[in-house]
Amino acid sequence: MSKCPFDFTRRKFLAFAGGAAVVAGAGVSGLTAAHAGFGGATADLKQPGLAPQLAAQNTLEPFWGKHQSGIITPAQDYTYFAAFNLATTKRDDVIKLLQKWTKASAALSRGQTVEPDGETVDSGDTLGLSPSRLTITFGFGPGLFIKDGHDRFGLKSRRPEALVDLPKFAGDQLVEARTGGDISIQACADNPQVAFHAVRQLARMADDIAQIRWTQAGFIANQPDGGTTRNLLGFKDGTGNPHVDQPAVADKFIWVGSEGPDWMRGGSYAVTRRIRIALEHWDKMKVAFQEQTIGRQKLSGAPLGLKNETDAVDLNLMDKDGNPAIPENSHIRLATAAANDGIEILRRSYAYNDGVSLTAERWPPWRQGMEYDAGLLFMSYQRDPRTGFIKIFDKMSKFDMLNQFTTHVGSALFACPAGAKEGGFIGQGLFA
Amino acid sequence: MSKCPFDFTRRKFLAFAGGAAVVAGAGVSGLTAAHAGFGGATADLKQPGLAPQLAAQNTLEPFWGKHQSGIITPAQDYTYFAAFNLATTKRDDVIKLLQKWTKASAALSRGQTVEPDGETVDSGDTLGLSPSRLTITFGFGPGLFIKDGHDRFGLKSRRPEALVDLPKFAGDQLVEARTGGDISIQACADNPQVAFHAVRQLARMADDIAQIRWTQAGFIANQPDGGTTRNLLGFKDGTGNPHVDQPAVADKFIWVGSEGPDWMRGGSYAVTRRIRIALEHWDKMKVAFQEQTIGRQKLSGAPLGLKNETDAVDLNLMDKDGNPAIPENSHIRLATAAANDGIEILRRSYAYNDGVSLTAERWPPWRQGMEYDAGLLFMSYQRDPRTGFIKIFDKMSKFDMLNQFTTHVGSALFACPAGAKEGGFIGQGLFA
Repeated sequence: MSKCPFDFTRRKFLAFAGGAAVVAGAGVSGLTAAHAGFGGATADLKQPGLAPQLAAQNTLEPFWGKHQSGIITPAQDYTYFAAFNLATTKRDDVIKLLQKWTKASAALSRGQTVEPDGETVDSGDTLGLSPSRLTITFGFGPGLFIKDGHDRFGLKSRRPEALVDLPKFAGDQLVEARTGGDISIQACADNPQVAFHAVRQLARMADDIAQIRWTQAGFIANQPDGGTTRNLLGFKDGTGNPHVDQPAVADKFIWVGSEGPDWMRGGSYAVTRRIRIALEHWDKMKVAFQEQTIGRQKLSGAPLGLKNETDAVDLNLMDKDGNPAIPENSHIRLATAAANDGIEILRRSYAYNDGVSLTAERWPPWRQGMEYDAGLLFMSYQRDPRTGFIKIFDKMSKFDMLNQFTTHVGSALFACPAGAKEGGFIGQGLFA
Repeated sequence: MSKCPFDFTRRKFLAFAGGAAVVAGAGVSGLTAAHAGFGGATADLKQPGLAPQLAAQNTLEPFWGKHQSGIITPAQDYTYFAAFNLATTKRDDVIKLLQKWTKASAALSRGQTVEPDGETVDSGDTLGLSPSRLTITFGFGPGLFIKDGHDRFGLKSRRPEALVDLPKFAGDQLVEARTGGDISIQACADNPQVAFHAVRQLARMADDIAQIRWTQAGFIANQPDGGTTRNLLGFKDGTGNPHVDQPAVADKFIWVGSEGPDWMRGGSYAVTRRIRIALEHWDKMKVAFQEQTIGRQKLSGAPLGLKNETDAVDLNLMDKDGNPAIPENSHIRLATAAANDGIEILRRSYAYNDGVSLTAERWPPWRQGMEYDAGLLFMSYQRDPRTGFIKIFDKMSKFDMLNQFTTHVGSALFACPAGAKEGGFIGQGLFA
């Protein structure tokens, strides 16, 4: 052993690697294990295929297709979201990166491991796990088209009109380190390690071309009976979502049509907001107050004054005193389609839970101290953010009673292009 | 509508609450639903019992018993750990808080909702979910016995000798806001929302008596086949754990015996370390180097030079060149019982994943930038930390090759007292 405890010679690596391969290579061959194989003679992790027993377990979501997966896909339990800065000025670098990312994402979605570069291999932390319904969804931020006035990649003229710079909304307390990004990757899976693993491999491939700007892990607690999940406010979240399992509905509200640039047809726009919730404050409120704030009953999820979660919101309903059953400033009155020219957006949000930090609340009693850094990674998809999130939230940011408990600290808008055909790559149309 | 959008009169709340109760009360009665009931006429959330179908699903871990649950309990998938400062100087306040916490923890473990105080109720975010094997484990830090030289609660003379102040270890970069605490509560469950929910309710009960100092959420990716989980390094973690399912082993290594103060007999000592891992750096290493660093094969988990994960570590084994098969500075050589006078500790760690932050790595190539704030919430249980974690880690902190990739940023030691009999409370013996 050399004197320096960290002096490790390449000779020794190779000597060892040769020995290890005998053992490591023995158990795995070809298409026999998901997330479970060493493939090569150098003890590198390599996994070419998916075990039949896992493929049969409904743990796979398709990667290739007209639309990107992870948008109208029924929400998995966990997400890992990452926004990247592009550090290159070369158009070809971006194209090559998107090609590598696309190919690797398809493999990861099938439960395979990947080789981020010629030297190093998959991190291996998902070996033995199922694909867990992994989806990987890419988005392009305004910075891909123009950054600090520079048309870095010759794409300025191809920026979609709908990919606006998000306005500053009332109450915004955006943190630079949780805002924006040139490219986004959102991995969703039914296992948090599988979601993180995917982004981790893709981030490694991007070395020096794209660098992580900010990330956020999230979760939802899917109900055993398949019912609407409850967020950290304790209320059902997502009840009023459009029925995107119906193609006509998805085409109307989610997918970009003939109005968009060609490469965005079949794509969608993602608005992401990291919303810290003053849970300590919220928890001190009586349930009746919470219900007036949201506009729904806490237990059933029914709109106030009605009986069932799925009852249509009736803004004209009055209580016995002649007041609106759903208060003027309640969350759902402001958010509902009937109050927004019939527009609907798909909310696909996750809770986040990043411990505690020193915080001063924005509202009486202006509590200060170590408070939960927890809340909602709000994710929404829509055909056009100008008539979707921006229109709806401009009003909500001013009037929603729930604002007493929420602070938007992160924000981004991404154009998620159409899906890719096998052999193609995400965003190919943009660079054509 | 009043001019101020947040002006909500109490009259209006009450008028509403009366109406809501009719609907809310209708669907639930008595012992019919877990996490699923409004019980009162004021639409407060109250849940007195567990549904039979959930009780039958192996989703329950016992709360009452000789030992606290959550120590030798097979690890659930998720944790939420919280350390509290005591803000009171009254012994009775602490006793009353422990009584309330014990009672509530027993209820939460059964899947019930709780009423944190007379005014407000359960946050309701676990309604409809199963108990998810929730365990809640309490620990007492040195500050309960003496704080800044003050014997606040008359407990100074009852401080166990084993509850030392942890020494500073080589490489420690402890952050005050992630270190220490007078009392700890660790909730573990197979659902992250259930784990957080438990701590959230208990923290509310502690208002003004105990305040959250730091918290950490964590997860592990349990293997579908029940095998050893892989941590974010991609290696199997926990292989060498003592077989605490055998009472003699648990008594020898985990549970305090006649040597401890009475109230600690059947208890254990928990060492918690928040260990940030430079995953970007680790991922650039070849698998063979990673294996030499850990001392085990990545795929199989076998000690180097051997074939199977469960093969006993053989420190004397030489490779064909006459070098130790398990390198001198490898992680397992330093950690294994054979190198530590036969001492074993129970590791019950969770991965954590708190996004990215601006970081300068401690080792070449001294990368700087946005790096993962991810790693391990190392949790260990032992009969005596002086002969357990402290002894083992003192050496590892100096020599372990893995230190190139890890930074300990948080740390705490807690005395976890014996379990409680139904009707008693956790720590009762200490205050007797």
